Amino acid sequence: MEARKIMLKEGEIPRQWYNILADIKLNPPLGPDGNPVKPEDLAPVFPMNLIEQEVSTERWIDIPDEVLRVLSIWRPSPMVRALNLEKALGTPARIYFKNESVSPPGSHKPNTAVPQAYYNKVFGIKKITTETGAGQWGSALSFACCQYGLECKVFMVRISFDQKPYRKSMMEAWCGKCVASPSTETKAGRDALERDPNTPGSLGIAISEAVEAAVSDVTGETRYSLGSVLNHVMLHQTIMGLEAKKQMDLVGEYPDIVIGCAGGGSNFAGLAFPFVLDKINGKDLEIYPVEPAACPTLTRAPFVYDHGDTAKYTPLLPMHSLGHAFVPPPFHAGGLRYHGMAPTVSQLAAEGLISPRSVTQLSAYEAGALFARTEGHIPAPETTHALACVIDEAKKAKEEGKEKVILVNWSGHGLLDLGAYERYFANELQNEVLSDAELSEAEKVFANHPKPAVLKSR
Amino acid sequence: MEARKIMLKEGEIPRQWYNILADIKLNPPLGPDGNPVKPEDLAPVFPMNLIEQEVSTERWIDIPDEVLRVLSIWRPSPMVRALNLEKALGTPARIYFKNESVSPPGSHKPNTAVPQAYYNKVFGIKKITTETGAGQWGSALSFACCQYGLECKVFMVRISFDQKPYRKSMMEAWCGKCVASPSTETKAGRDALERDPNTPGSLGIAISEAVEAAVSDVTGETRYSLGSVLNHVMLHQTIMGLEAKKQMDLVGEYPDIVIGCAGGGSNFAGLAFPFVLDKINGKDLEIYPVEPAACPTLTRAPFVYDHGDTAKYTPLLPMHSLGHAFVPPPFHAGGLRYHGMAPTVSQLAAEGLISPRSVTQLSAYEAGALFARTEGHIPAPETTHALACVIDEAKKAKEEGKEKVILVNWSGHGLLDLGAYERYFANELQNEVLSDAELSEAEKVFANHPKPAVLKSR
Repeated sequence: MEARKIMLKEGEIPRQWYNILADIKLNPPLGPDGNPVKPEDLAPVFPMNLIEQEVSTERWIDIPDEVLRVLSIWRPSPMVRALNLEKALGTPARIYFKNESVSPPGSHKPNTAVPQAYYNKVFGIKKITTETGAGQWGSALSFACCQYGLECKVFMVRISFDQKPYRKSMMEAWCGKCVASPSTETKAGRDALERDPNTPGSLGIAISEAVEAAVSDVTGETRYSLGSVLNHVMLHQTIMGLEAKKQMDLVGEYPDIVIGCAGGGSNFAGLAFPFVLDKINGKDLEIYPVEPAACPTLTRAPFVYDHGDTAKYTPLLPMHSLGHAFVPPPFHAGGLRYHGMAPTVSQLAAEGLISPRSVTQLSAYEAGALFARTEGHIPAPETTHALACVIDEAKKAKEEGKEKVILVNWSGHGLLDLGAYERYFANELQNEVLSDAELSEAEKVFANHPKPAVLKSR
Repeated sequence: MEARKIMLKEGEIPRQWYNILADIKLNPPLGPDGNPVKPEDLAPVFPMNLIEQEVSTERWIDIPDEVLRVLSIWRPSPMVRALNLEKALGTPARIYFKNESVSPPGSHKPNTAVPQAYYNKVFGIKKITTETGAGQWGSALSFACCQYGLECKVFMVRISFDQKPYRKSMMEAWCGKCVASPSTETKAGRDALERDPNTPGSLGIAISEAVEAAVSDVTGETRYSLGSVLNHVMLHQTIMGLEAKKQMDLVGEYPDIVIGCAGGGSNFAGLAFPFVLDKINGKDLEIYPVEPAACPTLTRAPFVYDHGDTAKYTPLLPMHSLGHAFVPPPFHAGGLRYHGMAPTVSQLAAEGLISPRSVTQLSAYEAGALFARTEGHIPAPETTHALACVIDEAKKAKEEGKEKVILVNWSGHGLLDLGAYERYFANELQNEVLSDAELSEAEKVFANHPKPAVLKSR
């Protein structure tokens, strides 16, 4: 019998993260005055040790033992050969998926939640605030804070809070305090409720609440945490790609194609960046971030300076953006409903080192159902986007008669998203594609922003 | 760093199941005429190759390659040292848990669903019917049937069907057809609806519907499947204990105590039976099946001949039983709400080879929450019963200053049961303990049944 699972031993967990800022240039974030933001400007929001990581250009950064101890609860994660899917497709391609669903919260998110909680703890912080949309990030941070004895406060978008009570219970199981946003606990929340007492909430409002709750704590013992977009988040996630390289080595393979879904960018980046380094060093491979056609940041939006949040609390970041006021249609891959894209991922796209793709909602669910029916595990709605691209490439390999090696990040399971599958099976979901007119309209919000410089890293 | 996870390689999956019928005597099942049931009597319900396994006394039975191929989707399952839990308890005990939540449906149930589907397929069966209460078994059988291209029809107790829509979507993701029971598709269902159109349903009715749907298919291509209680189910589950022994060997350990939760008995039996064999052969260890105080089959009910279902469709089985008409209170560990207990497990208790325990609902959830907050993974409500016993034993080891080795079956995750945790955290759950009067009343239904003989296997 051919082995499916390629496992590393616990002692083989990587001891360093890979920092892509050593290998690419990046436009700096800009403050309200149009000048680059200085590290100390961010001190009320993040602990200084994480800010240092955010701006570091060291290629390799040591993972503290105390972080490895917690990561080892589920890491190294399995790499699995998708033998049944290959057979169903009749493809000569060999498909490998990195299974990040084995973490307690069920996704790749704790790879950064754990070190973020750790660095806050070391810096003397007692409480962390954050926002969550679908709930993956809020539960990951609750889990991480629980491991280090920190308080965790999560502002969860009202509509998700009401529709996904399981996520709230999960946070509570790890002692996280989860409130519906907008709440009456912050000025931002109270203002939003005054404007519309029945508002379903938004990620923009929830971010504003979480940041306000952190910076307004007069004890100075509270900080805010973000689950994607920022450089240090991408850094922490590279543990996935570094493990994957070791696992590929074990079976004497190297990917022709690396694929990950991309919302804020951390899932894609975590698997892909170590392979981007190889590409920079001359390796020949294709790297595809995959986004929803309804929120096509990399494939259709311009590379601009824009805010990370709707309320414009954050600095201007150099990124592909649909505009900070953009509200994507309510498709079910909550983790991919972000108007922007990590500056590092945006820069790689601008330099042509990665090749963005987009897929429609229905083809994503179709791919998810085929995966569940062949490989057994039910993927998260976000993950299904990457799988749709995998299936396209596997079919192409069949047409071309090529033994392509495809590596995909299986970012999380869909066990708390089965309601979305239910709607798909009941034919209640549609494809939504952004129109050119909607795109033009969305772009107006950054028309007067400074433009990022065209940087060539080599 | 001390390693947490003890992993076997895929090639180390056991190639044979252990059949405890080679080592213990069992009273035979009895038919309506009071005589032992003959294998051919069961032929309309089960395929003959599974009936042969049900009555086999061969000690080791080969696992077909086609079964191993599907089991390898998630097996071998990890054994994990619960370092954080040990630390939180300050115990000198070393606690190991066998993590069966890694299967696609999230529990140990597919260990028997997969071989059952396989043997049905080999026998020429096209469709399998079953019942499900909380939904674990129905999803496991849907998954297994999907792997072998069989139709799967699940009758799900109405109240669970309404309260747990995610389970239905999960079955659908694997092409299982799930209907609420009572349904209009069977006579048993229609009769139940006529008696009470608003009935919440019961496992008893659902079993009757599933059996009827199987035996009434005139093509002869449909059979029924049961997820616990029967000898062949216990047999298939021993793969867990056989793996666990290899994993203990790898770290030079042997358990002083083996613990599993017990509803119908398959989770407990699967881990424990290979260790029972050692005990029969002279090893000194304690083996504890753990049941809810609200449904105390082994700890308080007598060893009798009783029916496996409420409607008395099944033969009389020799088992500890609270009476086939017993309706346990609605606590949330749906998998432990069964009036009887596997005949093999009942016989071991009668012979004193295992020592049954019971725990209350609140101590079970307390244990589950402590586990989640230390080890990260959130256990199923059933699993929390075993964990409550683990914690008791670990505390006892601390008092006695003994380095006990405790092995527990972590039967499944609680990600689709977070609603029950929510109620626990909101202090909405109570302890329910069966009163002596209720027990006496329940026992009336088997007062006139034949009595099992007192058998001594050695």
